[in-house]
Formats: sequence, structure tokens, C-alpha cells
Amino acid sequence: MPVASGCPYGMHRVLEPKGSLPQGAQRLDNTMEIYDNEILVDVETLNIDSASFNQIRQQAGDDERRMAEIMLEIVATRGKHHNPVTGSGGMFIGRVREIGSALQSRELKVGDRIASLVSLTLTPLVIKEIKRIHKDTAQVDIAGQAILFSSGIYAVLPQDLPEKVALAVLDVAGAPAQTAKLVKPGDTVLVIGAGGKSGSLCLHEAKKRVGPAGQVVAMDYGEAAVNRIKGLGLADVVLNVDATKPIDCLQVLHGACGKLADLTINCVNIPQTEMASILCTRDGGTVYFFSMATSFTAAALGAEGVGKDVTMLIGNGYTKNHALIALEVLRENPKLRQLFSEIYV
Amino acid sequence: MPVASGCPYGMHRVLEPKGSLPQGAQRLDNTMEIYDNEILVDVETLNIDSASFNQIRQQAGDDERRMAEIMLEIVATRGKHHNPVTGSGGMFIGRVREIGSALQSRELKVGDRIASLVSLTLTPLVIKEIKRIHKDTAQVDIAGQAILFSSGIYAVLPQDLPEKVALAVLDVAGAPAQTAKLVKPGDTVLVIGAGGKSGSLCLHEAKKRVGPAGQVVAMDYGEAAVNRIKGLGLADVVLNVDATKPIDCLQVLHGACGKLADLTINCVNIPQTEMASILCTRDGGTVYFFSMATSFTAAALGAEGVGKDVTMLIGNGYTKNHALIALEVLRENPKLRQLFSEIYV
Repeated sequence: MPVASGCPYGMHRVLEPKGSLPQGAQRLDNTMEIYDNEILVDVETLNIDSASFNQIRQQAGDDERRMAEIMLEIVATRGKHHNPVTGSGGMFIGRVREIGSALQSRELKVGDRIASLVSLTLTPLVIKEIKRIHKDTAQVDIAGQAILFSSGIYAVLPQDLPEKVALAVLDVAGAPAQTAKLVKPGDTVLVIGAGGKSGSLCLHEAKKRVGPAGQVVAMDYGEAAVNRIKGLGLADVVLNVDATKPIDCLQVLHGACGKLADLTINCVNIPQTEMASILCTRDGGTVYFFSMATSFTAAALGAEGVGKDVTMLIGNGYTKNHALIALEVLRENPKLRQLFSEIYV
Repeated sequence: MPVASGCPYGMHRVLEPKGSLPQGAQRLDNTMEIYDNEILVDVETLNIDSASFNQIRQQAGDDERRMAEIMLEIVATRGKHHNPVTGSGGMFIGRVREIGSALQSRELKVGDRIASLVSLTLTPLVIKEIKRIHKDTAQVDIAGQAILFSSGIYAVLPQDLPEKVALAVLDVAGAPAQTAKLVKPGDTVLVIGAGGKSGSLCLHEAKKRVGPAGQVVAMDYGEAAVNRIKGLGLADVVLNVDATKPIDCLQVLHGACGKLADLTINCVNIPQTEMASILCTRDGGTVYFFSMATSFTAAALGAEGVGKDVTMLIGNGYTKNHALIALEVLRENPKLRQLFSEIYV
């Protein structure tokens, strides 16, 4: 039975150190009795972050039984699946069991299947049983429960898309949703790392919004990525160049388009692509860094070092309705849906 | 005599590795003969980055002669004062000796005293003699020369401000200039780390722009900082709270103002203040991270973790006319000018 309201950010669940937020906490209270502004979920599957999953595999010598022990040990110690070595978490899929009285106005009902869109590093979790470990997908089927705080975002899984496809999209939902907010008609939009999961969704949103006077430029490196992009038919220009070589990128872009980008979206999952993003953007333009490989200082000092007056945005993984926007992309675009069904599942 | 045009970003000066930009280069060509889009400067003083200066002091056992040897060795090896241990540089002060023909239209003339606003890590430099090492200020008087590329930003030193005061302001010029661009009338603007160098300049720009319907909230930690802020008379509300404790900050701000900030400017020079900045900003608001201690992933994942839809900006050290804007603050505000003369020189 729900007790009093907790902190919307879950501070009431932090056991140590006191005063920290759940993500930074060493240990959470994972008692599966909800406060009236929490949601209790019966968890079916954990999507372990790939860095964390690989570390666990290594530590266990690839032995599944030992992997299960390590995972149980993490949760027993911390009250959450927060890998102490990699510092990373993942997300979960499950079915809503109970909704706190303070959250009854939400469009969510007991029995709904949801995916958490906040990290396991801040999610109170109990694992009763580890049923199966899928080494190929870093998914782990369990019997267990988790708690979402009132600030904790989630998505109700759609009926019309395969679960794995939906999850692949939800994992990067912030990117297309932010692209939708940033692109203006007439813009030249450059997507770096356009052949990847987040990049290809951004291409779709950019193409929809630039209109006939704008153009979408896709940049990636290697024949496979370039062919994948061409097959989508979303980019007006496709450039094959190494994003860690800023001057090459600048020259190739300028050679192909005769101008620089109004908006550059960086979706590259390798480090040291900040300068290419900055140099390829016009003075007064905007760079959106969605890649987690972005270095804050490399971007800040890099722009200063070349005297480039660009607005640089940190890719917030969340923006309002991001799950809705990202899932809709696959409904609008059969080719992207096929790509996600074939490659990113 | 000037030779042909070089790359605006100085790629033509990179000896190794080929294809990298000057900042990332191991070694630059520091031949003091300019290309027609370069500027040659007789250098008087190097302002060594404090991390670099301290490392050199330590390595030299605080011996000035040995420090000089280390500095000469760095420049002999790399063609720039790019400390191989700390990775950092600094800036220089000098007098313009020659302006390439392609840059003659600039408002700059031979003989002008300038401060470089790009890092020594990307600046071709020759040191002929080290004259004096100022251990208290990390300044080193030299005889030498340096080259600015056409993208290299600099400021002509003002006649009406003491040089050290001007330098202290120029060091953080991006912060007040960006604040000037971001603040809108009626805004509630929160400056975190408001008692410091960049923070106090931001307070001035914010106060000028919020108008009677807006308010400026200053946050810092400790009596000294708080009293300094109160003495300036620029903040409508002054809060004494530890910015590494996000929930404390949120509660103190909400208690004092009854609402969250439309714009939060983070000028704190210590790590782990991202969450306080995010939590103190309203949904749909903006966080401007000027602090080099900002972690990209802490900000990106942190906002997602609490489901906060805020625009997060990476503090570009450069924006158009930033030196002009920042120096003007001290002319407009005698109290700030006094503060800078007393404390930050």
C-alpha cells in the first residue's frame, strides 16, 4: 500500500551517501513497496548497457552461471544494476503492476508493457531469478521488480512494431526529436555519422523539415555506411569522409555544397569528431552533439581556437514526446523500418 | 616577405602528424616568416596556463633556471608552448610586427599591443630569451616571436584599463558576451559561481538585460563569495549553497524565488555541478555551461535521468565581439572594475 510522497527525483531511496541523487548513490533502498508518487513494475527483461555487459562477460570468463552471480551481486550490493567497474546501467522492459495514487492522472494503466527510458544506474531493482542471458543482444530475461520515480521517463511499447525494433529506436529517441525541433525550412543540415542508428533517424526528420529550399547532407565513412544512406534516399548529398579529419571534412563539404551547414548534428560514436563538426558549420550556426563520445573541453576550446562563433548544444537524451516522435519515424518511413528490422535488432 | 596564403586554421604549419590541426599537432613549423594571411608578433610576455605552470615548477623543483630550460625545451621540440604533461598552453602579450597582405583590411596596425585569445597550444612560437619568471602570476617575460593564423582571435589591449585587469577580463570574455546574447527581458537568470571572475561579469550583463520584470539570482558557496556578490549590488537574490548538492540548490532556489530559472549560467570551477544547474532550470529553459569542469556525459545523461527538457549549451570561449563586450563591462561598472583591480590581478 502506497505510503507518503517521495522526492520526484528519488532522493528518498538513497541510502548512501545521503544527499546525493539516485544515479550518484552507492546504494539505493530497493524495498518494493511504493511511495504514492512511484510506479511499481514487474520486470521481464533487462537491456544491459553494452560496456557493462562486456565487462561482466569478461569478469565471468564468459560463463553464464558466473555472469548471473555477478549481476545478482551488483543488485544485492547497490539496490540497482549499476556496474561498479563501467559505471553504466541499461534499461528495462516490464509490465506495470501498481501506480501510486499521486500519479493516477497519467495516461498509463496497470498491465501496460513499458520500457524504462531512464538508466538502470538510478532505478531501484530486485532480481528474484535470472532466467536467460542473451549474449548476442546483451538482454537478460529475469523475474523481478523495479520502481520508477515520478520524474522517471518511460515509453508504453507500441502494438504495431516488433519489440526489439521499438527498443532500438527508443534507445536513441532524443536525437530525431531534437532534430525535429532544431531544423528550419531552407536550412542546410549536415548529419555526421548519418549511417548509424541515431543518424539515420535524424536524416528522416531533417529531410521532412528543410523543404525544397534546404538540403540534407549525410556524412559517414566507408562504403557500407554510404550505401546504406543512399538506399534510404533521404540525403541530397552523401559524403564519404573520416570525421576525425576536420580539414578533410571541411573541404569535402565545401566542394560538394559550396557552403557550410546551418545546423550540424553529430551522431558519431567515436571520439575526436568535435572539430569536424565545428569547422563544417557556418558562423552563427548550430552544432548539436548527440554522441556520448563528445568531449566538453575539446568542443569549447576547439571552437575558440579557430574563432568560430557557433552555438553548441549538449545532446539531452530527453525532450518532450521524444519516444512518440522517434517511433513515428518508423511508421512514416518503410525503408527505415526495414533497416531497423534487419540491422539494429 | 610574405609568401602565399596558408590555411586559415594553420594546417600549413603542422609538421606532424600531417592532416591534424595545429592544436592537436605534435610539432609546428615555427619559422618566423609569415604567409600572407598570418600576423607576426614580437612577444613580450607569456601567460602560462596555471596547470602547466605548476607542473613546470614542480618538475624544476621550483628552480627558475631549470624552469626556463624546460620551457625552452618544450618550444624547441614542439614549435609551440604546448606542455606535453598537462596538454595545456596559455596566451601571449606582444606588439604587432608585421601583418600579411591578405589581412590588411583589418582594424589592426603594426605597433599595436595585443593579447592573443587563442591558446599557446596552437600558436607557432620562438623564444630567444627568457627574461623573467613571475611565479606569483604565472607570467613569463621573454624576447621572442609568435604567429597568429587568420582564424586566430586576439584583442588590442585597451589604453584605459591596467594591463593585468584587461587580461583577467579577456581570459573569461566569452561568458559575459554569451550572457548578453542569451538573457531576455523578464527572465529569471541564475548565475552559479557568481562570486568568481566570469560569474561576476555575467551578473552585470544579466542585470542590464532582465529589466524590471526579471530577476537575477546569484548562487555561490561561503561567506566570502556571498559578501563579494552582495557588495556588487547586481543580484536581486543571493543564495549561499553548495552547487555539488543539487537538491539543496533546488530547494534553496525554490524557497527564495518560488520558481525555477529560465536561464542558468554555470561558472563554477569545480566538477559535479551539472545536476544543480539542470534541476534549478525550468522545463524548456536553458543551461549555459561555461565551466571547463563540465562533464558532457554528466550533463547529457543527468538531464535524461530526471526527465528534464532543458537546452544545454557548451560554453564556446568565443563569440563575436566578446573582448569588446567584456572590457566594456568594467567601464560601465566601477565596482566590478575595483573588484578586478583588487582581486583578480
